Amino acid sequence: MIKAVLFDIDDTLYNSTEQTFHARMNAIKAMIEAGLPLKDEKKCYKILKEIIDQYGSNYDKHFNKLLKKLGVKENYRIISAGIVAYHDTKSAYLKPYHDTIPTLLKLKEMGLKLGVVTEGRMEKQWEKLIRLGIQHFFDTVVISEEVGCDKSSKRIFEVALRRLKCKPNEAIYVGDRLDKDIANANKVGLKTVRILKGKYSKMKIPIKPDFTIKTLSEIIKILKDDYYG
Amino acid sequence: MIKAVLFDIDDTLYNSTEQTFHARMNAIKAMIEAGLPLKDEKKCYKILKEIIDQYGSNYDKHFNKLLKKLGVKENYRIISAGIVAYHDTKSAYLKPYHDTIPTLLKLKEMGLKLGVVTEGRMEKQWEKLIRLGIQHFFDTVVISEEVGCDKSSKRIFEVALRRLKCKPNEAIYVGDRLDKDIANANKVGLKTVRILKGKYSKMKIPIKPDFTIKTLSEIIKILKDDYYG
Repeated sequence: MIKAVLFDIDDTLYNSTEQTFHARMNAIKAMIEAGLPLKDEKKCYKILKEIIDQYGSNYDKHFNKLLKKLGVKENYRIISAGIVAYHDTKSAYLKPYHDTIPTLLKLKEMGLKLGVVTEGRMEKQWEKLIRLGIQHFFDTVVISEEVGCDKSSKRIFEVALRRLKCKPNEAIYVGDRLDKDIANANKVGLKTVRILKGKYSKMKIPIKPDFTIKTLSEIIKILKDDYYG
Repeated sequence: MIKAVLFDIDDTLYNSTEQTFHARMNAIKAMIEAGLPLKDEKKCYKILKEIIDQYGSNYDKHFNKLLKKLGVKENYRIISAGIVAYHDTKSAYLKPYHDTIPTLLKLKEMGLKLGVVTEGRMEKQWEKLIRLGIQHFFDTVVISEEVGCDKSSKRIFEVALRRLKCKPNEAIYVGDRLDKDIANANKVGLKTVRILKGKYSKMKIPIKPDFTIKTLSEIIKILKDDYYG
């Protein structure tokens, strides 16, 4: 019987694909308005994306690199315009899915423990939970930076299970990525739910989740079937 | 005759003393709400202030140090609650004085060049100008990080003068700190205006500005007297 539900954050509890796209695009628009010489937004976006892929999303000088790539001398009138627009847009789109909070509440009512297992920096992932207004729902939050390993290691899941006093087959993991969330949680022996949201919803690889859902509230039925089944 | 007006940012163009106080206080309240064991807000504020004085305002782990000092294990449920409250409050109080924009507009109408000479990190100081909505008013913005020296060096002022094509006696500098803004701008040969705002308004040291004002709009009269005088 399932005693705990563990969640990924990005694209699982809120739409991070949409958030990231608009934040980058609005940053580019602001930088163009502030004097960036390349006025083609789509071309800028493509170059910026290459830079982010190269340096990683936690690097903090993406816009400096963009200017360099476009042959523009470092200019904080432009860079800071981008940063301000980026952060404002990130905040504006940091909203739970319409059914995130009702679903978490329902799971609580059903007596289930809730947890988060996610990759990223502690400060950033906690900020997301707080701004989403859902930080109080979770009995444990395990972040890769904290435990020193990502989801490819069993340990990140095992830490969560230990804290919740659950065996692997008593917990279910909900995530958007077949290659990370589902593949790794499967290995640990958790039940797995793939949520078809965000840019990874089209991924096709031979990894099988136990369940596939289109929207978060569908896990209620899965768990009720488990409970009564 | 005066051709250019140069400004400090903090406590000169907006109330940074008030902003900083409320941002720190709201961060403490949020951390207490999130589980900080010391519930005495004033005592927490005092400890936090000591940490900021010790590590500098641009250090990014003040709240981690606070927890350590209180004997609490690093806990991002608490730290990130503080960070979110801090940033939200900073944004909320990042508003120009009631007469900042009218004064800058009037100076523009009078045909004067405008500039900023300030200490700090480029990203942060530019962010302030952008969020204050005044970045387009200035013909030049010179920040200590950019030129590699603070206001104790003549060079930071000389860079601004060169960019504005002004001699020292053709420019006036407006700032809140007698010991930094006024003392150093005096040395360079600029006319100086002390604005009595923020925590340095009570400072008494034997440094004399050419003018003292209580609110920004008073510089209009000073400059008109200069023009017609």
